Amino acid sequence: MEVKLINYSPEPDRTCAVAALGCHSPKTSGDLIKELTEKKITRVLRETMKRGHLSVVEHASFTFSVSGISRALTHQLVRHRIASYSQQSQRYVKLDSPTFVTPPIVEKDKGTLDEYNEFMKYAWETYGSLLKKGVPAEDARFVLPNATNTSITITMNARELLHFFELRCCMRAQWEIRQMAWIMLEEVKKVAPIIFENAGPPCDNCPEPEFPCEVRNNAKTGKR
Amino acid sequence: MEVKLINYSPEPDRTCAVAALGCHSPKTSGDLIKELTEKKITRVLRETMKRGHLSVVEHASFTFSVSGISRALTHQLVRHRIASYSQQSQRYVKLDSPTFVTPPIVEKDKGTLDEYNEFMKYAWETYGSLLKKGVPAEDARFVLPNATNTSITITMNARELLHFFELRCCMRAQWEIRQMAWIMLEEVKKVAPIIFENAGPPCDNCPEPEFPCEVRNNAKTGKR
Amino acid sequence: MEVKLINYSPEPDRTCAVAALGCHSPKTSGDLIKELTEKKITRVLRETMKRGHLSVVEHASFTFSVSGISRALTHQLVRHRIASYSQQSQRYVKLDSPTFVTPPIVEKDKGTLDEYNEFMKYAWETYGSLLKKGVPAEDARFVLPNATNTSITITMNARELLHFFELRCCMRAQWEIRQMAWIMLEEVKKVAPIIFENAGPPCDNCPEPEFPCEVRNNAKTGKR
Amino acid sequence: MEVKLINYSPEPDRTCAVAALGCHSPKTSGDLIKELTEKKITRVLRETMKRGHLSVVEHASFTFSVSGISRALTHQLVRHRIASYSQQSQRYVKLDSPTFVTPPIVEKDKGTLDEYNEFMKYAWETYGSLLKKGVPAEDARFVLPNATNTSITITMNARELLHFFELRCCMRAQWEIRQMAWIMLEEVKKVAPIIFENAGPPCDNCPEPEFPCEVRNNAKTGKR
Repeated sequence: MEVKLINYSPEPDRTCAVAALGCHSPKTSGDLIKELTEKKITRVLRETMKRGHLSVVEHASFTFSVSGISRALTHQLVRHRIASYSQQSQRYVKLDSPTFVTPPIVEKDKGTLDEYNEFMKYAWETYGSLLKKGVPAEDARFVLPNATNTSITITMNARELLHFFELRCCMRAQWEIRQMAWIMLEEVKKVAPIIFENAGPPCDNCPEPEFPCEVRNNAKTGKR
Repeated sequence: MEVKLINYSPEPDRTCAVAALGCHSPKTSGDLIKELTEKKITRVLRETMKRGHLSVVEHASFTFSVSGISRALTHQLVRHRIASYSQQSQRYVKLDSPTFVTPPIVEKDKGTLDEYNEFMKYAWETYGSLLKKGVPAEDARFVLPNATNTSITITMNARELLHFFELRCCMRAQWEIRQMAWIMLEEVKKVAPIIFENAGPPCDNCPEPEFPCEVRNNAKTGKR
Repeated sequence: MEVKLINYSPEPDRTCAVAALGCHSPKTSGDLIKELTEKKITRVLRETMKRGHLSVVEHASFTFSVSGISRALTHQLVRHRIASYSQQSQRYVKLDSPTFVTPPIVEKDKGTLDEYNEFMKYAWETYGSLLKKGVPAEDARFVLPNATNTSITITMNARELLHFFELRCCMRAQWEIRQMAWIMLEEVKKVAPIIFENAGPPCDNCPEPEFPCEVRNNAKTGKR
Repeated sequence: MEVKLINYSPEPDRTCAVAALGCHSPKTSGDLIKELTEKKITRVLRETMKRGHLSVVEHASFTFSVSGISRALTHQLVRHRIASYSQQSQRYVKLDSPTFVTPPIVEKDKGTLDEYNEFMKYAWETYGSLLKKGVPAEDARFVLPNATNTSITITMNARELLHFFELRCCMRAQWEIRQMAWIMLEEVKKVAPIIFENAGPPCDNCPEPEFPCEVRNNAKTGKR
């Protein structure tokens, strides 16, 4: 899996802070953007977000290029609707050689892994054979497994990302999308440290406390 | 493929017509809803939609239950973001026996079909074997193909449906989602005949006229 | 203020329960919709919503006709973006006689009320005079006050309504939109009692506990 | 009216071109972003947009700070739902002195202008008097007119902007929002010349050709 932050609105913390301040000030965000100190940015964002006024962090957007992930992941990902996606198309791009994701639990056991790899080889042979028989790529791909690699460009604003991290950094999320979510979170924290300082699963307020969860339990005991 | 319209806002044409009329009238939609004649409903909707004021048809929603479709289809479907989906989860529902969609072009040729079916059998054997080895359903499904059957509940308002039909009833769309779109269109036409009277691909205004297309050409010559 | 529920997807609780159940069942929502008992509907919805899987209640939509409200209210209302609105247009509908909302605090004091009414009379005189001088309605309305009456058709799905009630039934909301929100909540509770059974302000989890609030304090002491 | 582009995703044309290319290429957008020539960016964007695949231009966002506009304008503006807004609040910001927008047609005639200004003076006197009597700002503002100045931070992605320009640069739009739309278009053209090269009203395909319109008629005769 490769996750790159390829673009974002510069100075996300500053941009969102002036948008917030413009709601309660006779000054405009255009005036405020130059004069705001780092200290004030931090204070304004923390107060605003604590009160739940999250619309102000919609003014910063982040674009990721992600590859080496499965279509099982992207089928879940694109359910997040307040976002923009451009995905490699299996209707147009032919996948010559086996290129797929292997779940860690499959990798752990030699026998299981062999069976898995054997299957993948057979899947791509069938795919190639169908193509050769004149079946168009959009139909031949019907044999390609959920594990098949794909790449995608994702754009989300900070508010949607906060929501995404709440759901997908959580232990209840599927391992692969969780792994991607944590890398995305690391990336955006570098460029928008205040907006994302508390991002992640809402362990203190877990909606399924009966779910067995190491992370939450460690959080309770101070380990993480 | 089974497509059922399981619910919708009653009297869609009437509801949207009064919403439209309420914009230009001193009366409220609540007053107008009882007094409007069929004739006036038709006239108001046609005029409003012709002018491109499509927001008024957002007041009617339609809910479908669709099954016997592939996950290749649903991965495309859920890209339509102004809509609501509840889909059968491969993380929780185990698929005991092979259950999948076969493209028409594969069905046409005996040899191709045999190869396809053979592969599907093997895919489900591998899936079952992984489950037996203790691999959780959410990871075992990595071997399941795009062809795998799924079922989904879809809700869209009439405006989004019009947009959906424009894109997905078109010959440029993939055959399976196109087939589903046409059945959906037939269903909603029965209950909202005015809103959907011109729904479908925008052949007269095709954005890819160089694309070889029987339908559009027949449209030009009067055949359809 | 008049708030009428003029349309909604029939059987909202049932529809959303089968959508939820379809995610974890080999059966489709189309099969389930006939066979589900009231008891099961209640159980499924409560469990699903408790876990935060709110997307399932998007399958039910509700349409209101609201009149006798101010444009101050609708300017706030239409900020809720996951919704559909058709509003009486001041560009096209001329408002012959003064028709406006009076805040309760203004009504309490005779002197204040007189001053308010005097102003409104003058505002409509100016509006009428501008129209007579040939100023088009879309420009003459620049003198009309925030208090001016308007009417609007609103459609929201149950998920957005739950969010709307959280924000707008709260004492921190402006009195007029709060009043409207509470009437809307009463109306939808009649037809979707399970979905909306816990709807309203999240007092137990108030994001501004320092805000002076009778309701929340009464909630704490058992009075409401 | 002051319209400033205060932030945007850097290199909008490049970003959207690589997102588009990533759909039909074995390479990822992350690989493509460095190697794409200006020439190829132009060609890819033009082809993609001509085909109506507008989702790729959602990967670029633009943030404006706008002030000196009326609340009549913002009430229309915020109806565009695929966008983010942070607006100066009349609930919290008190407006000490008259500050309002005057329609050009009112300015043309001395008598009309005097009547208009007289009214505005009276409106602010009443507003100030209510505040002094202890009416809170959120209720005192009920007397403030549609003309009242406001400021707002707006973020839209390029796809929504294209749609916004189609509707709001058109002669059928209200003069004030049209004026704002044209300035916004000029600003984004400077930083995303390919994406916005054909932006504006769709005169060649006008949905209301019966509407009397200088611009469209001049367009037909080559004058603009």
